[in-house]
Amino acid sequence: MNTYDQIIQLSLERGFYFPSSELYSDASAGFWEYGPNGVKIKNKFLELWRRELVRRDNMLEIDGSQIMSKNVFMASGHLSNFTDPVVKCKKCLSSFRADKLIQEEANLEVPERMANEGVNELISKYGLRCPLCKGEFSPAERFNMMFKVEIGPNHDEAYLRPETCQSIFVDFSRIYKVSRGKLPLGIAQVGKSFRNEISPRQGLLRLREFYQAEIEVFCNPSQLDNQPRYDEIKNTKLRFYDQKIIELTVQEAIDQKILSNQLIGYYLALLVEFFDKTGIDKNRTRLRKLSDEEKAFYSTIAFDFEVDTSIGWLELVACNYRSDYDLKSHSTTSKTNLEVMDDNSKVLPHVFELSLGVDRCIYSIMEHSYFVDRENDDRAVLKLKPYLSPVHAGVLPLLRKPEFKDKASKLLKNIQRDFDIFYDESGSIGRRYRRLEEIGTPFAFTVDHQTLEDETVTVRYRDSMQQDRIKMSDVKSFLYNNINDYSS
Amino acid sequence: MNTYDQIIQLSLERGFYFPSSELYSDASAGFWEYGPNGVKIKNKFLELWRRELVRRDNMLEIDGSQIMSKNVFMASGHLSNFTDPVVKCKKCLSSFRADKLIQEEANLEVPERMANEGVNELISKYGLRCPLCKGEFSPAERFNMMFKVEIGPNHDEAYLRPETCQSIFVDFSRIYKVSRGKLPLGIAQVGKSFRNEISPRQGLLRLREFYQAEIEVFCNPSQLDNQPRYDEIKNTKLRFYDQKIIELTVQEAIDQKILSNQLIGYYLALLVEFFDKTGIDKNRTRLRKLSDEEKAFYSTIAFDFEVDTSIGWLELVACNYRSDYDLKSHSTTSKTNLEVMDDNSKVLPHVFELSLGVDRCIYSIMEHSYFVDRENDDRAVLKLKPYLSPVHAGVLPLLRKPEFKDKASKLLKNIQRDFDIFYDESGSIGRRYRRLEEIGTPFAFTVDHQTLEDETVTVRYRDSMQQDRIKMSDVKSFLYNNINDYSS
Repeated sequence: MNTYDQIIQLSLERGFYFPSSELYSDASAGFWEYGPNGVKIKNKFLELWRRELVRRDNMLEIDGSQIMSKNVFMASGHLSNFTDPVVKCKKCLSSFRADKLIQEEANLEVPERMANEGVNELISKYGLRCPLCKGEFSPAERFNMMFKVEIGPNHDEAYLRPETCQSIFVDFSRIYKVSRGKLPLGIAQVGKSFRNEISPRQGLLRLREFYQAEIEVFCNPSQLDNQPRYDEIKNTKLRFYDQKIIELTVQEAIDQKILSNQLIGYYLALLVEFFDKTGIDKNRTRLRKLSDEEKAFYSTIAFDFEVDTSIGWLELVACNYRSDYDLKSHSTTSKTNLEVMDDNSKVLPHVFELSLGVDRCIYSIMEHSYFVDRENDDRAVLKLKPYLSPVHAGVLPLLRKPEFKDKASKLLKNIQRDFDIFYDESGSIGRRYRRLEEIGTPFAFTVDHQTLEDETVTVRYRDSMQQDRIKMSDVKSFLYNNINDYSS
Repeated sequence: MNTYDQIIQLSLERGFYFPSSELYSDASAGFWEYGPNGVKIKNKFLELWRRELVRRDNMLEIDGSQIMSKNVFMASGHLSNFTDPVVKCKKCLSSFRADKLIQEEANLEVPERMANEGVNELISKYGLRCPLCKGEFSPAERFNMMFKVEIGPNHDEAYLRPETCQSIFVDFSRIYKVSRGKLPLGIAQVGKSFRNEISPRQGLLRLREFYQAEIEVFCNPSQLDNQPRYDEIKNTKLRFYDQKIIELTVQEAIDQKILSNQLIGYYLALLVEFFDKTGIDKNRTRLRKLSDEEKAFYSTIAFDFEVDTSIGWLELVACNYRSDYDLKSHSTTSKTNLEVMDDNSKVLPHVFELSLGVDRCIYSIMEHSYFVDRENDDRAVLKLKPYLSPVHAGVLPLLRKPEFKDKASKLLKNIQRDFDIFYDESGSIGRRYRRLEEIGTPFAFTVDHQTLEDETVTVRYRDSMQQDRIKMSDVKSFLYNNINDYSS
C-alpha cells in the first residue's frame, strides 16, 4: 500500500475525514466531511495560519456570504471565463471533461480549460472515442463550474462563490474605511468555496465543496519596493523551481529578477515561514513560477507553492499578482469609485493574493508526518507538531479499578476544558499508547499505582517513547508550555 | 435611537457585520457578512461553546458538507414538510409569505407555516388584498425553503442543508464506530445552513445563510434517568417560563414534572451554564416549553432558550427531543440498520438536540454588553468578557515620535501573535481609548515618557478607567492571565 492509501485508510478508520452522505448510494463524488480528529487538526491549522500570517502582519479577517449575487460574477469574469470544456458521447450520453480525457486517452499534456477548438482538433487528430462504449463525441461545449441557486419567490439568479476572495473585493471599500486602513493592507478570509467539477477524484485533493484560506493584499503599485518590515524577511530563504531547485534569499531573488518587487518577496517569505511551522518538510517544497498558459485569467504574475507527496507535486497555495483586475471590474460593473487615498494621492489598489487550499494542506501535513517505526513493532505514528495534534494528550487509568478511575477523572476534569484530551480505559496500556500515537497525540498521562501514593502520573512522549513522572497538579502547566512551543 | 438601531450602527461603523454585496443594487436581502471585529467575536464565542459544552462533556465535533444529496432530505422530511405558504397577487404578481401577511394585515396570531386551507380561509374571511396594489390573491401555494443545486454534467439534484444536524445523522454510524462510542454521546457541529426565506429582515436575526452550532446527543431511551455526571448539575438553577418566570433547580423541575428526565435536565443545565459565561444577563433569559402547534415536525418535546432584547424575546437555542425520528427515517430510506450496541443490547438511539443560532447570539451578546456611561461624557462601551472581546488590548504610543513608536513596536511584536492587538498612533489618547472601548477592548497599554526611562507601560482598564503601571516584559503574562479568566 502506498502512502496515499495509508493516509486515506487512517483517515477513514480514525475519523479524520470521509465521504459525505455515505449512507446513500447516489451520493455525489467530490463531497467529504471532517470527522472529530479532522475538525481539530483543521481548526488548529487555521489558528496557526492566523498566528503566523494574519496577526503577524496585522491583517484584517472577514467572513462573507457564500451565496453571492449574479453581478459579482459578471464583474469578476467567472460567468464567462470559469468554464471547462466538456464532450458528450453521442451513443451512451456520458459526459467527460475534455482536457482531462485528452490527457489520459492520448497521453498528451494539454493546458487546463483549453478552448473548444483545440479540444475538437485533438479529438479528431487522435481519433478519440468514448472510453465507456467507444461511441463518437459531439463537439466540445463549455461547462460553467459555478453552482447556480435561485433566491426568494422571484427566483433571483445567484451563485455559490467559486473563490472566497470575491467577498473581499466587494467588501474592500467598507473594510478600508471602517478600519481606517493604510496600504499595503492584507484582508484575509477562511471559508467554503464551490466548484462543480465534472469528474472530481482523490479524496481531499479535488473537491466540489472545499475550504480556502485566502489573503488579498491591497497595495499601491508605485510603492511595491517600499515594503514595511521588509528587513525582517530579506534574508529568508526561498526555494524556486525552474527545471531544478534554486535556493535564494528574498533579496537575492530580487537582485536576480526572479522576484519583481519587495512586496511579493515579503509575502512569499511570510508564507514559507508559516509552512515551516506546519511540519511539512521544507526540502520537499518549492515555489514554481507559472507560464502564461498556466495562469488564471486574472493573474499577471503567478507562483504556486507546491509540496512533494506520494502522488506527485501538489499545489497548496496559488500566489497571484492580480493587479487592479478585480477592483477595476467591480468598480465598472457597480459604477462605484473604489479608489482610496494613499500618501495624499488617489490610487486604485493592486492586489497580491495568497490563496491557500486548506483541505490539501491537511492531507499534506498528515502525509509528511506519517512515520512507520521499523524499530518498534512497525508502530504507525503521526509526528504532528503538538500545537497541530487533534488530541493534545491521553489520560489513561492503568487499571479499571475505581481508585484509578477516580484519579484519572479528577485529572481529566482539571484539564479538559483547556486542552483536547482523550480519556481511554479500555485495552492494554500498550495498545492505548498505539491508538494515541496513530492520531498524533504527543503526550499521554498514565494514572498508575504510584499515583495513588503520591499524586504523580507518568508522562509518556510520543516520539521518544520515554517516560517521566510529574505531579498531577503540574500537568496543566506542562501542557500549556509544551503545546504552545512554536520555536522548533 | 433604540438599542437595536444603536447596535446595528455600531456594527456597520466598526466592522462587526454588514450586508453582503453592498456594491450591487440587486444584492438580495438576508445575506450579511462578518467584518474584522465580527469574525473575532464569533470565533471566540465558538471557542467558548467548545470549551463549556463540547470539551466539557467529551462530545465529538464534525464538519460536514453543506451540499447534500436529495435522498437525505427525502428521509429527513424537509422535501415535503419544510415549506412556507405563499400567496401571489394576481395583479402586480408580487409574492408574500402568507402567515406573516395575515399576521400583519389582519393583526392575528397564526402558527408559523400554517396549511394552505387555513391561509385561504383567513384571507377570504378578512378580505385581505395585496398591500402594494390592492389586487386579489391567488390561492396559497407551498414554497420549499431549501436552495436547490445541480451537481455535475448530469445535473444531479441536491440541496444546501437547511440545518447542520442532517450531516450528524447520516454520519452517526461511522462516527460511533470509529470513536468506539458509548451512549449517551454528543456529536456537535458548527457550520452554515441555508433557508430560502421569502422575506428576510432584521440584520443578523433572520438570514438566508446563517451559522448554526448544533449538538445532537444520541441516547438510549431506556437510560434517560441514568445520566452520567448528573450530580454535577442537579442543583443548577433554570428559569422556566409559563405565563411567568419560575426559577427551579434541575432536580426540582424533574420532581415537578416540568422536565421529563435527567438527560434533558443535564444538557439544559450545561447550556445555561455556558450562557452564564457569555455576558448575556441571566435574568433576561428563559426556557419556554413549546406547544404542540409551535413544535417542529420532528420534535416530541421542545424548549426554546430565549433572551430578552430591545426588539422582544429572541429564540437563541431550540432544544428538541427528536426521539428516533431521524435515525429511523434515514435507516428506512437508505435501507441500513442504524442500531448500535449499548449495555449488551441493540438500540436505535434517540436524539436530544441543542440547536444554537450563532448570529443571533452574537447580536444578543452585543446588546447585553452595550453600555452608555452617563457619568463619563456618554462614552459608549461594549462590556464584553475579555475572552470574547474582538481586540484583547490596544498598544498606544503616547506621541508619534520615533522613540515612542520604537518601544510600542517592540511591545507589539512580542504579543501580537498570541493575542488580538490593535496598534493605534493617531489622535489624542482619549479618543484612542474611546475607539477601543466602543468595540469592547478590555485593556490598553500606553507607551509614555516613563516607558523611555524604565520600560514600564500604563495599563488602562476599560470598565473602571483605572490606570496602573506594569513592566513591558510582564504584559504577555498579564494578558494571558486576564484573558483566560473564566471565573467571573
